[in-house]
Amino acid sequence: MKTVYVKSLYRDTDSYAGKTVSVAGWIRNIRVSKSFGFIELNDGSFFKNVQIVFGEELENFKDIAKLNISSSLYVEGQLVLTPEAKQPFEIKAEKIVIEGLSSPEYPLQKKRHSMEYLRTIAHLRPRSNTFSAVFRVRSLAAYAIHKFFNERGFVYVHTPIITGSDAEGAGQMFRVTTLDMENPPRTEDGKVDYREDFFGKSTNLTVSGQLEAEVYALAFRNVYTFGPTFRAENSNTPRHAAEFWMIEPEIAFADLEDNMKLAEDMMKYVINYVLENAPEEMAFFNQFIDNTLLDRLQNIVDSEFGRVTYTEAIELLKKSGKEFEYPVEWGMDLQTEHERYLTEEIFKKPVFVINYPKEIKAFYMRLNDDNKTVAAMDLLVPGVGEIIGGSQREERYDVLEKKMEEFGLDKEDYWWYMELRKYGGTKHAGYGLGFERLIMYLTGISNIRDVIPFPRTVGTAEF
Amino acid sequence: MKTVYVKSLYRDTDSYAGKTVSVAGWIRNIRVSKSFGFIELNDGSFFKNVQIVFGEELENFKDIAKLNISSSLYVEGQLVLTPEAKQPFEIKAEKIVIEGLSSPEYPLQKKRHSMEYLRTIAHLRPRSNTFSAVFRVRSLAAYAIHKFFNERGFVYVHTPIITGSDAEGAGQMFRVTTLDMENPPRTEDGKVDYREDFFGKSTNLTVSGQLEAEVYALAFRNVYTFGPTFRAENSNTPRHAAEFWMIEPEIAFADLEDNMKLAEDMMKYVINYVLENAPEEMAFFNQFIDNTLLDRLQNIVDSEFGRVTYTEAIELLKKSGKEFEYPVEWGMDLQTEHERYLTEEIFKKPVFVINYPKEIKAFYMRLNDDNKTVAAMDLLVPGVGEIIGGSQREERYDVLEKKMEEFGLDKEDYWWYMELRKYGGTKHAGYGLGFERLIMYLTGISNIRDVIPFPRTVGTAEF
Repeated sequence: MKTVYVKSLYRDTDSYAGKTVSVAGWIRNIRVSKSFGFIELNDGSFFKNVQIVFGEELENFKDIAKLNISSSLYVEGQLVLTPEAKQPFEIKAEKIVIEGLSSPEYPLQKKRHSMEYLRTIAHLRPRSNTFSAVFRVRSLAAYAIHKFFNERGFVYVHTPIITGSDAEGAGQMFRVTTLDMENPPRTEDGKVDYREDFFGKSTNLTVSGQLEAEVYALAFRNVYTFGPTFRAENSNTPRHAAEFWMIEPEIAFADLEDNMKLAEDMMKYVINYVLENAPEEMAFFNQFIDNTLLDRLQNIVDSEFGRVTYTEAIELLKKSGKEFEYPVEWGMDLQTEHERYLTEEIFKKPVFVINYPKEIKAFYMRLNDDNKTVAAMDLLVPGVGEIIGGSQREERYDVLEKKMEEFGLDKEDYWWYMELRKYGGTKHAGYGLGFERLIMYLTGISNIRDVIPFPRTVGTAEF
Repeated sequence: MKTVYVKSLYRDTDSYAGKTVSVAGWIRNIRVSKSFGFIELNDGSFFKNVQIVFGEELENFKDIAKLNISSSLYVEGQLVLTPEAKQPFEIKAEKIVIEGLSSPEYPLQKKRHSMEYLRTIAHLRPRSNTFSAVFRVRSLAAYAIHKFFNERGFVYVHTPIITGSDAEGAGQMFRVTTLDMENPPRTEDGKVDYREDFFGKSTNLTVSGQLEAEVYALAFRNVYTFGPTFRAENSNTPRHAAEFWMIEPEIAFADLEDNMKLAEDMMKYVINYVLENAPEEMAFFNQFIDNTLLDRLQNIVDSEFGRVTYTEAIELLKKSGKEFEYPVEWGMDLQTEHERYLTEEIFKKPVFVINYPKEIKAFYMRLNDDNKTVAAMDLLVPGVGEIIGGSQREERYDVLEKKMEEFGLDKEDYWWYMELRKYGGTKHAGYGLGFERLIMYLTGISNIRDVIPFPRTVGTAEF
């Protein structure tokens, strides 16, 4: 039976009106009276269900009437407009073929379940309204990112997941090994002998593709990564996962100003794309998850993002008279409370904070002429705080070398990174956007476990 | 200095002719005579260079004349059409700003280098013609895949990289751990105690996202994954990497026929996209890497892919009279020599081989009515052999259960996978395409190490 997608029925209703159509999908709800019944059928192509009306003239009426939620069906029938009803149309079934049965024990019944419970059935939760919406938006946002960078001629680079470096500095790492854990080979002095490991040395999962992305920016000018990254931190919070996806653009012949422009354009592009391509899902989030969501996103799209230096931001926070948990003083790292106050109360829109004290930022950020700050940028957005972190990179060999010494890094480990500064180095810049943070922001979902199909967090790697 | 991309100059030459333009890029070649010189400048936006002509009227002429290959520059000047010359236009420099110096020791000199040597400078090789072409095509092919599936309404799913399962059956796995390797915690009976590990159990890197993709196909109908996968096999060959990217679509309410149709459409779409969007790169590969390339790809685009059952294929191979290294008999796995003979000599085009003996294929493939074969499909293409492997999945709970017993698998480990068959299971199917194999096929590059930015293979995890 050649089927049409429910999405097509909704988007192109007029051309199907009065015609016989075939659909396939799963029962989300079924109500039966003596001689007829209604099925809410969802085929996964669209957020909304299509209503099926079926009567006792169907030879398998009794079998259908007994079906449980989540049974799968093929349905053939006439599409009838129902302008007076809640739904714009329904299908009057002429034939229903039962494809797969379900059971009364189906765990995802019509009633509301807690998010915690739904995590324990991560293999079924994408069939619920909330997760159907979340994971379609996740897919659309991923596509929007690729489309944005492709339209600008950026080259997509797959930076390595397994890395021989254990010093990327962005967090604790997972070891990757094929050694026998029970009884690993040992060197003469009794240490584990990683020369015997798969790669002939100790290896870890990457925490960032940035350093390798810089390699490619200095060949292709504009590049980006979009891939999984890992943190082995023991952070059991709603905002931390051990495995998450990150987007890291890197642009050559470019400074911090170009970097901010790119980040602003990208954020607006992705939000617009999702609003345009998932209106039903976004309306659902606004109604059931966070009723400030659409206003908040529209504010981002419509605003020119603010700019403020770290030093000015500290002054603004001090002058505000607000009592913060962490007292404000120059040299401190901004906490979420400060970030949110800046973007929500002072600027009332997204704002870039730039030029942070060099001591609290990474070694590769470009030293400013004041010798005290680096050309870093954090993008703060209302409702969250920091969503993007980036910087102009230090392109001066001697300055970078000195910085690495100050940070206690071994230059040998970074020989190739240093060489980028020796052979036609250029001003360049980039940033990182945690993809799950973006999805939380786009959907209003407050726990990172609920925007990842099968989340990996401390103590949990199910499915 | 606001710059224009060299790609724009080539694609839209007429609108720049006679105008003053600014470009930024790296010197690929420089020739200087007494009072003027030529620079081949590449800005990474385009495969081809732009020729810069500069003369002694520039105040920094002497500095420019001394520049080494790979120095980076900003150039401003008039774009002049040169219809009689090899290149269609050049820029008569009015101003050149030196951005970053290079050195005479720059390792990537004009002369030809071996691919082996270039792997040792993986941080510089994207600046060579060959790798500039390879990695732009890689990026375009990735985009084409996302675009293809997005246009068809497929949901992109990020299946987990770290998995608690060690039984996906597709190959040897890497362990992921945060335990102290020198002195891991032990249980009472002296074994390593993985309850103390980060996830509270033993974990590995995924070899396939298929099982999780099936979860999502049974919610969204049409889904795909595109992410890194890992094999810890000690295979030091030109075709095996320990870390590679894989595309795995999965479609519900679909059978093997739908699956083949999808694979054929996808292959043609991606090839067409790359031919259209990287004509210069593809011409380069055809000239310097494999001069059968363009014909071979055109043949794929123009052919209706063949179909043959495994049983028929065995007969055809037997009847061919050809002496194979591995003798042909029913029940054997096809070797590359057989696959290539089938697609190159017998069919002379891509061909799907379907319905393989159940013993040589995975447990999840759907058992055919003959009880001897499963609904598997391998796509064979000239020049390579197998490029795609897939199947219809076993959707019948009892048949799957029996199969798992035969394969000695623990049903407990697959409880959620089994439940998909209990709550509205449907016919469904999918396949896997190794992304690097595709790139090798699209470029003619014969070693997988040369289509991955920073390859990970036995004994190698540099950069």
